[in-house]
Amino acid sequence: MSTLVTPEILRGTRDFLPEEMVKRNYVMNTIRAVFKSFGYGTIETPVIEYLSTLLGSYGEEGNKLLYRFEDNGGRQVALRYDQTVPFARLVAANHRELPMPFKRYEINRVWRADRPAKGRYREFYQCDVDIIGTESLVAEGEIAKVVYSVFTTLGFSNFLIKINSRRLINAILQSLGVPEGDQISIIRILDKIEKIGRSEIQKELAPFLDAKKSAELLDLILMKGSNQEKIQAVAKYGISEVAEFLDICADYEIPEKHLEFDLSLARGLDYYTGIICEVILPDIDIGSVCGGGRYDDLCGRFCKEKFSGMGVAFGFDRMVLALEELGLLKDIVTHTEVLVTYFSPETRQKSIFLVNLLQKEGIAAEIYFEPAKLQKQLKYADKKKIPFVIFCGPEEIQKHEVKIKMLKTGKEKTIPEHQLINYLQGFSGE
Amino acid sequence: MSTLVTPEILRGTRDFLPEEMVKRNYVMNTIRAVFKSFGYGTIETPVIEYLSTLLGSYGEEGNKLLYRFEDNGGRQVALRYDQTVPFARLVAANHRELPMPFKRYEINRVWRADRPAKGRYREFYQCDVDIIGTESLVAEGEIAKVVYSVFTTLGFSNFLIKINSRRLINAILQSLGVPEGDQISIIRILDKIEKIGRSEIQKELAPFLDAKKSAELLDLILMKGSNQEKIQAVAKYGISEVAEFLDICADYEIPEKHLEFDLSLARGLDYYTGIICEVILPDIDIGSVCGGGRYDDLCGRFCKEKFSGMGVAFGFDRMVLALEELGLLKDIVTHTEVLVTYFSPETRQKSIFLVNLLQKEGIAAEIYFEPAKLQKQLKYADKKKIPFVIFCGPEEIQKHEVKIKMLKTGKEKTIPEHQLINYLQGFSGE
Repeated sequence: MSTLVTPEILRGTRDFLPEEMVKRNYVMNTIRAVFKSFGYGTIETPVIEYLSTLLGSYGEEGNKLLYRFEDNGGRQVALRYDQTVPFARLVAANHRELPMPFKRYEINRVWRADRPAKGRYREFYQCDVDIIGTESLVAEGEIAKVVYSVFTTLGFSNFLIKINSRRLINAILQSLGVPEGDQISIIRILDKIEKIGRSEIQKELAPFLDAKKSAELLDLILMKGSNQEKIQAVAKYGISEVAEFLDICADYEIPEKHLEFDLSLARGLDYYTGIICEVILPDIDIGSVCGGGRYDDLCGRFCKEKFSGMGVAFGFDRMVLALEELGLLKDIVTHTEVLVTYFSPETRQKSIFLVNLLQKEGIAAEIYFEPAKLQKQLKYADKKKIPFVIFCGPEEIQKHEVKIKMLKTGKEKTIPEHQLINYLQGFSGE
Repeated sequence: MSTLVTPEILRGTRDFLPEEMVKRNYVMNTIRAVFKSFGYGTIETPVIEYLSTLLGSYGEEGNKLLYRFEDNGGRQVALRYDQTVPFARLVAANHRELPMPFKRYEINRVWRADRPAKGRYREFYQCDVDIIGTESLVAEGEIAKVVYSVFTTLGFSNFLIKINSRRLINAILQSLGVPEGDQISIIRILDKIEKIGRSEIQKELAPFLDAKKSAELLDLILMKGSNQEKIQAVAKYGISEVAEFLDICADYEIPEKHLEFDLSLARGLDYYTGIICEVILPDIDIGSVCGGGRYDDLCGRFCKEKFSGMGVAFGFDRMVLALEELGLLKDIVTHTEVLVTYFSPETRQKSIFLVNLLQKEGIAAEIYFEPAKLQKQLKYADKKKIPFVIFCGPEEIQKHEVKIKMLKTGKEKTIPEHQLINYLQGFSGE
């Protein structure tokens, strides 16, 4: 075989090199650590599912975006499209063994046979966290605290958790005389309000509401004011869950400035039934970075048991982009702390001895593999952003010393070998 | 839609519930931490690759096991079959940007359209670690130290790293008059020696070697003795790399009892050119749990530049099985340390206050979401293996106290609320 194959990948998929992986893993591990600290466990489902498991969950449009094929045994299969349907399938099959309420998170890849575009990939990560098996509003409160903790821990200072209630929207629409069957159509229209503006929305509402009523609706949902003022304005509809939810958020010590009762928040999806929420970053024009809500019946396609739940999904790629833009990923670098140079075959043993010594003290260290020119070894350290380089030639060995160079400052220092660990530990925390 | 879809998955794929995920993640994170401590970075490649990238790398048999299909745009694609070919493609496309030598690890899933059987899955994890861009034997030494550290850190005490040299086998075969073109066929036969035994091997060798020569070969490669004795026995073939490699392993302080020069180790794959190795667990009949070696030309199918490398793959699923069998995964449990019970709506605020308090001190805590019967709340804690449960009813609140139950012992203790953190931290390290 002498013709070379072009080393290319499918559009809409990505290769990630180590430098980017360090950042992505930092973000992922931070999110994971928050989930774990609230007692969420993770699950894993196969990437290949039976087509029948996935078809019928995503509507006509979604079905077209499935990566589907026939396997060698003639079975119709497809690649995971989201994490929700496999989660529902797993719960339906295992709910007797699972602790209930069941709290799970999942950060994994999904696939969509979509036309790739800026920010739209065929393979991308989803990051979901859900509580199922309880109707308590404390679940909504805990999820809000998880969301608050994720954004705070990552270093975001300006973020807004917008909240609303589907139950409340339905009550408002009912008071305007909208029959139950039309309510979801109106919610889908209201969901576009940020994009297309008030007057367009009013036009689209015309088949359902006369001009007076749609003006009344829009006046209400676009009202300005504090959360408390809005709670009073909607009290007459008899749905108090937003007020109760905000009380629980206060118990969870979520600062009020991060919570906005937004009566125009609708979220297009059909299955929400209670509290809904969405997170935006006012400083960055990137859209919603997290969203979700309360749903009634997770596993309806797979079993008769009903599982109500509350969950949100984080937009992992958008969050990484936003963190980059805000300069919050600058100092996340390679894991090696020390490169031990390799002077000559005669000094190899000492270099490996130093690597062993550092490793034993928990300091990530590596040796350069060949007695190459020092400049080449330094270039390697520089490319990997390794902060310290140790030199140990025949002269240093004879004097029981080592020379340390700090790459950021260029400063060099020669110290007795037995002071090496102590010297380096003095820099930790930088 | 009223007919229920059976919540089943394809044979040869698996669902993992949280309890199993905790164990698998512990093993994965331990391995990852070792890799990182030696300065290895990770990369990520797409799950879907162009078929042309994968075809031609795995031979006829491998090609049949590819999950391949046509995407919506009529492109021939396939699911990742291993991590090596995508790694080679990525290096060919990016080698100018990568630090060289390039040290990478990858722990990810691969797919094979194989017939499922005990221990053989259609979807499974591979765990690879490689150094490319250097021919130095120090790379072999570092990989051996990484292997040693992985097994030691996971708690294995009895493991054996078997080593041999392809260069040495070739030199021995050459001295027996085997032409170069036949050497790999003989290596493939020798690779089966553990499975089929000496007399069968001798039969299979007949087309290549007469009875006297094959007896001579088998006497040599099956010789008993210390590493040093074997090194002396093969000195006459002029290949000293095993001796040099063992010297470097000594520099890396790998105890000799874990290293066995096994002249019968062959490893069937064509592309090895130097040191080869394999890890076995003498206490467990599970086969090889890690293996690899030196290769000459990673990216040959994709670019003209030559990248020599050294790498091994760990058998992740087998290692998890072995750790289970040895009882080394017993104490790895859920991450929640404390469940705060929920007595009544009036005490909810105090319960959430306690969760906040614990979280701030870095103690993973969760509240039970509903004021259910205490027995139900305790059962939940038990199912999630949460070690401590805190009760805080009206009586405790009035006295500024909390009651703590340690589930393992069943012991209860009532303490002043302000001593809670101190009391729980007294148990850390258990």
